[in-house]
Amino acid sequence: MLGARAQGGWRALRRCASLPRAVRLRVREALGAREAADAVRVQGWVRSVRSQKEVLFLHINDGSSLEHLQVVANPSLENRDLTFGSAVEVQGKLVKSPHRKQNMELQAETICVVGPCDIWSFPLKMKERHPLEYVRQFPHLRCRNNTLGSLLRIRSEATAAIHSFFQDNGYVHIHTPIITSNDCEGAGELFQIEASSEVRESAEKTHFFNVPAFLTVSGQLHLEVMAGAFTHVFTFGPTFRAENSQSRRHLAEFYMVEAELSFTESLQDIMQVMEDLFKTVTSTVLSRCPHDVELFHKYVAPAQKDRLEQILKNKFVTISYSEAVEILKQASQTFTFKPEWGCDLQTEHEKYLVKHCGEIPVFVINYPYDLKPFYMRDNEDGPQHTVAAVDLLVPGIGELCGGSLREERLPFLESRLQRLGLTDAYQWYLDLRKFGSVPHGGFGMGFERYLQYILGVDNIKDVIPFPRFSHSCLL
Amino acid sequence: MLGARAQGGWRALRRCASLPRAVRLRVREALGAREAADAVRVQGWVRSVRSQKEVLFLHINDGSSLEHLQVVANPSLENRDLTFGSAVEVQGKLVKSPHRKQNMELQAETICVVGPCDIWSFPLKMKERHPLEYVRQFPHLRCRNNTLGSLLRIRSEATAAIHSFFQDNGYVHIHTPIITSNDCEGAGELFQIEASSEVRESAEKTHFFNVPAFLTVSGQLHLEVMAGAFTHVFTFGPTFRAENSQSRRHLAEFYMVEAELSFTESLQDIMQVMEDLFKTVTSTVLSRCPHDVELFHKYVAPAQKDRLEQILKNKFVTISYSEAVEILKQASQTFTFKPEWGCDLQTEHEKYLVKHCGEIPVFVINYPYDLKPFYMRDNEDGPQHTVAAVDLLVPGIGELCGGSLREERLPFLESRLQRLGLTDAYQWYLDLRKFGSVPHGGFGMGFERYLQYILGVDNIKDVIPFPRFSHSCLL
Repeated sequence: MLGARAQGGWRALRRCASLPRAVRLRVREALGAREAADAVRVQGWVRSVRSQKEVLFLHINDGSSLEHLQVVANPSLENRDLTFGSAVEVQGKLVKSPHRKQNMELQAETICVVGPCDIWSFPLKMKERHPLEYVRQFPHLRCRNNTLGSLLRIRSEATAAIHSFFQDNGYVHIHTPIITSNDCEGAGELFQIEASSEVRESAEKTHFFNVPAFLTVSGQLHLEVMAGAFTHVFTFGPTFRAENSQSRRHLAEFYMVEAELSFTESLQDIMQVMEDLFKTVTSTVLSRCPHDVELFHKYVAPAQKDRLEQILKNKFVTISYSEAVEILKQASQTFTFKPEWGCDLQTEHEKYLVKHCGEIPVFVINYPYDLKPFYMRDNEDGPQHTVAAVDLLVPGIGELCGGSLREERLPFLESRLQRLGLTDAYQWYLDLRKFGSVPHGGFGMGFERYLQYILGVDNIKDVIPFPRFSHSCLL
Repeated sequence: MLGARAQGGWRALRRCASLPRAVRLRVREALGAREAADAVRVQGWVRSVRSQKEVLFLHINDGSSLEHLQVVANPSLENRDLTFGSAVEVQGKLVKSPHRKQNMELQAETICVVGPCDIWSFPLKMKERHPLEYVRQFPHLRCRNNTLGSLLRIRSEATAAIHSFFQDNGYVHIHTPIITSNDCEGAGELFQIEASSEVRESAEKTHFFNVPAFLTVSGQLHLEVMAGAFTHVFTFGPTFRAENSQSRRHLAEFYMVEAELSFTESLQDIMQVMEDLFKTVTSTVLSRCPHDVELFHKYVAPAQKDRLEQILKNKFVTISYSEAVEILKQASQTFTFKPEWGCDLQTEHEKYLVKHCGEIPVFVINYPYDLKPFYMRDNEDGPQHTVAAVDLLVPGIGELCGGSLREERLPFLESRLQRLGLTDAYQWYLDLRKFGSVPHGGFGMGFERYLQYILGVDNIKDVIPFPRFSHSCLL
C-alpha cells in the first residue's frame, strides 16, 4: 500500500535543508515586496511548470492572491514529483523581475516537493479554464481553481466589509439563533430538527427541546427584541429554506445580512441604510480585491464593471407598488401573469421594472396589506390598503433586499394577530409593544445574491463554498 | 381593547414638535461630546425618573453604552407616561455637567413619550440589580438589563476583534456549512434535519438531500479543504450538540472560532495562533469596552481584572499529557477518576492541573493515540503512542480550545480509516492527501467559554443572546 513515490513525497520536507535565516513570505507579500531579498522561503502549490534547456520556470500560488509568483531555477532542480498541483517549498533570492507584468520573481536555490500530486487523477488541469459547472462536481478541490479562489477571497472581503460597515455606524452585532421554535412567517418550507437518537426511535417521540424546533428562516423577530435595547442592531448568518428547487437563484442554506433600527421616522430611513450598505461594501470590495474582481468582470460578466461604477455614483430609484403595477399594465410586453393590483410581483414583472428604470437598482415600496406578513406596519391608507414594505430589485437577480417598518402600535398588532389566531404564540412579541415600544423597521439582504449581482455570476451554487440544495449535500 | 392610555402613547410622537435643526445624537455621542450644543435630540429608554420640587431628573439609555445620559428638566414636563422603561425623545441643550461623574447632560426643552411602559407587568424594576437567573426567564426583555446589555456589547466587540485578528494576519474567512452529510468524528450527539413536510409524512421517507443530513459539530474538515487552497483560513459560526445536558458549561447551539493552517512545522505553530488570538482579542475588548468589562469585574467576578492582566503579560505554560498524568498521580488530592496514562482527563483533573500551574492558561499536548479521532497526526513515538493534539485549559472553565496537527500522510490516513471502516465515506478527504498534501493543523475555540472566562460569568446561558439547551428553546 505504501508506494515508494508516496513515501518519497512525505519525507521530502525533512530532507530539505533550510537556508540560514530565510524569511518566510506569502506569495502576496513576495509579489508586493519593494526590495530584493537574499534569503526567502515561499510555500504553495505549483500552477505551471515550464522546462527549457537552460532554465526552469514555475508558477507558485498559495491562495493569498490570484497572481502567481514566478520562480526561476536551474533545470537541475527539476524532479518527477514537481508537477502541476504539487505542494512545494522554494528557497532562494527574491529579485526584481525583468518582465513588465510582474514586480518580483524568485531565483530558486532549493525546491522541495512537500506533497506530490497524482496529476492523472487530479480533475483540474494545468492552464485550463474549467467551466464553473465542471468544477462544481469537485467541492473538495474546486477552491484550487482560479475563479473559485477569487470568488472566495472576495466573499471573505465582503464579509469583513459588512461587519465594518455596521460597526462603524454604531450597530451592535447579534448572533440570532439558528434553532428556533418560531416558524416566523408561517412559511411552510421549513427544516425541522431532532436529536438523531430520537429520529431513530419511536414515532411517538418526545422532542429534544420539548417543542418542535426548526432552522431559522430569518433573524428578524429576534433582532426586534434587541433593537428595543440597543437601537441599532445587525446579524449576518445562515438561514434556511426547505424549498424543493434546484434553480440558479435558490439554496437550502444561504446567508443573510439583517439589520433592525429603532426610532425610525419613515421607510426612507431603512432604504437609506440598504443603499449605504450596498455602496460602501461594494466600493470596499472593488478597492480591496481589484484583481479578483477583474477576473469576473473580464471573463465571467464583461461590462459589469462599468455598470457597477455607474450604479455607485447615482441614487437608487424609488417607485411605489401601485406605480409599478401601472407601469406593468401599460407595458407593450405580454406577461405570463397579468399584472393586477393586489397580486405579487413575479420575476418577469421585476425584470421589466428594472429594465424600465434603466437597468439600475429599484426600490418598490408600499405593498398591498393583504400580501404581507402580520408584522408589517399598516399605512392606514385607502382605497388601496398598503403596508410600509420595501423590496430592492436589481438587474439579473430580482429581489436583493426586503424590508419594512414593523407594526409598533399594540392595538393594530393585537387585532391582526387575533384574526390570524396567533395571539398566544406571539405574546412575547406583543410584550415588546407594551414596554417602551418605538417606531422601528429593518431589512434583510441575501448575501449570495449580492455576490452574484456584483460579480455577474449566473448560478448561486458558485458563490458559496459548499452549496446545499434539494437532493444535494456533498461533504 | 384600545385603552385611552395606550392610544395616547402611540400618538405621542406626532404631537412632539421638532426643534429647528436639532441634531440627533446617540447617548454615547452625547456623553462624549467635547462642546455644548444648542439643539440636540436624543432618543432612548428611561432608566430612572427622579422628580424634585424644582427639577426633574431622567436617565436615558439607548444601548450605545452602559452609561446613561442625565436629562435635567422643568417639573412641568413630567407626565404620567414618563416612567421607568418608557421610550422617549428628548430635545434641548447639551451642556457641560456640573457633576464630576459625567461629562455632559441634556437640559430638556421638550420630552415626548414615544411608547409608554406598563410598569406593573414589566418584569424589570427601576434601579434594581436583578440576578442573572431572574432575567434569564425573560429572553425577550433581558437585554434591557444593564448586565446583559454590557455582555452583548462585549460579545459584539469580541466578534469584530476575532474577524480583524484573522484578516490582519492574512486568513481567508470561509462560511463552512451548517448542514452536513458528514457526522465528522462519529460523535453520537447530533441533530438530524428534514424538511418539515417530510417529518409529517410517512416513516419510510425520502430525505430532502437524498442522504441523512445533520447540523455541523465542527467546520474542521471543510476548513482543511480550504487550507489546501488559501494556506490560512478561519471560520466563526454556530455549531451544535444534541447533548442532554443543562449544565452551566453546555449549550445545544454555540459558537466556535476555528482556524486551519497549511505548511505547519510543529504543533507549536498552532499553539502560537491560539495564544495570539486569545491575547489580541482580549486586549481589544478591554480597551474598546472598558465600562462594560468593568461592570463584570466589579460585580460579577471581582479580582478577574488583575488576573487577566497578568495572563496577558505572560506566556502560557505547556505540559505534555504524560507530564500531566505524572502531576496528577503525585497529587495529594484524591480524584473520583483515578489518573492513568491512556484515560481522558476529567474536569477534576483539568482543574487540578490549572491550579498546579498557578491558575493560568495551560496547553496540554501529545495525547494518547487511542483517545483521539482518526485525523490527528501520529507522533510515531513509543512506548507511549501519542498524536500531535493540544488542548488549552483555563481556570474556571476547563477546555477553552482544542486542536491538532492533521495526518497529512496518505498511507497513515488510509490505514487508519481502513481499520475504522470509514474508507468509503472519506474518499474525498483522502483525495486531499493525493493532490499536493501539506503538513497542516488547526484548532477551535468555544466563543461562549471564551466570554465566560474573560468576564467571569458562571453560566454559559448568560453569554449568548438566546440560549438553546435540552428542554428549552424559548422564542
